[in-house]
Amino acid sequence: MELKPRSADWEQRVRKSFEAQAFMEHLGARMVHLEPGAVDLELSMRPELTQQHGFFHAGATSSIADSAAGYAALTLFADGTGVLTTEYKINLLNPAAQPTLVARGRVLKPGRTLTIAQADVYGLSDDTQVHVATGLFTLMSVAGMKD
Amino acid sequence: MELKPRSADWEQRVRKSFEAQAFMEHLGARMVHLEPGAVDLELSMRPELTQQHGFFHAGATSSIADSAAGYAALTLFADGTGVLTTEYKINLLNPAAQPTLVARGRVLKPGRTLTIAQADVYGLSDDTQVHVATGLFTLMSVAGMKD
Amino acid sequence: MELKPRSADWEQRVRKSFEAQAFMEHLGARMVHLEPGAVDLELSMRPELTQQHGFFHAGATSSIADSAAGYAALTLFADGTGVLTTEYKINLLNPAAQPTLVARGRVLKPGRTLTIAQADVYGLSDDTQVHVATGLFTLMSVAGMKD
Amino acid sequence: MELKPRSADWEQRVRKSFEAQAFMEHLGARMVHLEPGAVDLELSMRPELTQQHGFFHAGATSSIADSAAGYAALTLFADGTGVLTTEYKINLLNPAAQPTLVARGRVLKPGRTLTIAQADVYGLSDDTQVHVATGLFTLMSVAGMKD
Repeated sequence: MELKPRSADWEQRVRKSFEAQAFMEHLGARMVHLEPGAVDLELSMRPELTQQHGFFHAGATSSIADSAAGYAALTLFADGTGVLTTEYKINLLNPAAQPTLVARGRVLKPGRTLTIAQADVYGLSDDTQVHVATGLFTLMSVAGMKD
Repeated sequence: MELKPRSADWEQRVRKSFEAQAFMEHLGARMVHLEPGAVDLELSMRPELTQQHGFFHAGATSSIADSAAGYAALTLFADGTGVLTTEYKINLLNPAAQPTLVARGRVLKPGRTLTIAQADVYGLSDDTQVHVATGLFTLMSVAGMKD
Repeated sequence: MELKPRSADWEQRVRKSFEAQAFMEHLGARMVHLEPGAVDLELSMRPELTQQHGFFHAGATSSIADSAAGYAALTLFADGTGVLTTEYKINLLNPAAQPTLVARGRVLKPGRTLTIAQADVYGLSDDTQVHVATGLFTLMSVAGMKD
Repeated sequence: MELKPRSADWEQRVRKSFEAQAFMEHLGARMVHLEPGAVDLELSMRPELTQQHGFFHAGATSSIADSAAGYAALTLFADGTGVLTTEYKINLLNPAAQPTLVARGRVLKPGRTLTIAQADVYGLSDDTQVHVATGLFTLMSVAGMKD
């Protein structure tokens, strides 16, 4: 499936919106890949992202998965619309304590109102990649909401 | 359904584990209610918890929902077991920008291995309460994992 | 939350649409309760609804949960729109082999485009009620689709 | 990821269990592919599988997705254990009215207690394949339950 942006300005718009997500900055997330229908976000392990056993908190894992899915959707939205997550589901496949966590958001089905995306999260160390989580996200295109 | 703790030490254990969740401290979450099968967590609005439109980021909302559900489950776990979220699903019903966000985690079905919990998130201001999100969580009891 | 139908004809419309769901007839489902925002559907135990251990198949349980949630939503839709399920999530809490299975669909958040509903399924016998499943459903209002 | 059956008898066991699912026979489902960690099930369009607009009912779509995921998991289970679906989530991407509906269940993460599988459903006609639904399933291995 070829995914075509409806806005000439899609790349700039996604980068600006991501920079405006104060929560992503608070977590330390970086956008490391961006193309139509696909966004990757990375987190480096820091103590303040962990739960009680020293693994990445499911909330941190889910947060970058959600933003990766949402921005993958936004790459395809028309001008003058904004993106909101309406729901998602995530399965946490393996506890993660690798140096880097990457969330890969990919659009499965673009739509005028609803876009469905998948996000997979991997824990990366020097020579291994562990599948940490997989999720399905429904993103809504909201007219008149600046993004 | 009456929910009975299997550990005499349940309250102390939950409080200690919550204090050890560095991620919850990073978000500024507080445990404001605790009884067998039920935990409430609160967040105060802060710019670093927002997304690009100034609402609480879905990741922040989900993170306290997940911890509230997980600790509601842990109140009922046997000694010598720890809690991990295996999966969850959340519907974001309304964007939230209220001064306070509260997540109410409630056990729906306790079990030796799997516990199912619901969490509802509300935005609170002086005189209103808005239903922000509702989710279903599967929590796993893991033997030999300290909690 | 008071839920108000937008169509004067809501009751007739829901009953006619349900009767047109050949799949519900194939399962033997009956509509036993109907009010704005709420629909209950029942199934009687029959061998052809079971999985390999003699319990109701998760597919049968989910099917009446889905239709109950969908019709609860349709009670609130404007004239000239139809209902489609866009996604759902269900937790199967207990295996069920009771004589009667009832799915209770309830609207949590009505909306012009998206409506969120919950459905709980119970197994009923003479003197007991077992919580069999709980689910969250997103229903979409589609203009120009007859229902 | 290479997926290895733990039971020498895995193929025979899955086929026998599927034949014992009266609900699958009631829907008319056929098992058309079977290997370790992967099962495909097919349905032919019949009026009794439809909802009110003539599309496959979401319940029928979900039912074969659930059984495909469950049997994909069962291919990897140890002798003397049975399979139960504990929860799933499904996104309905496109309404389907093709002559054939196929659900492809694939194990994402095998486990002693919990196995996570994905199922994708496609509508097939002579020369097209439409992505109808995608879902995530949690399957539980239950000791002492014959399968």
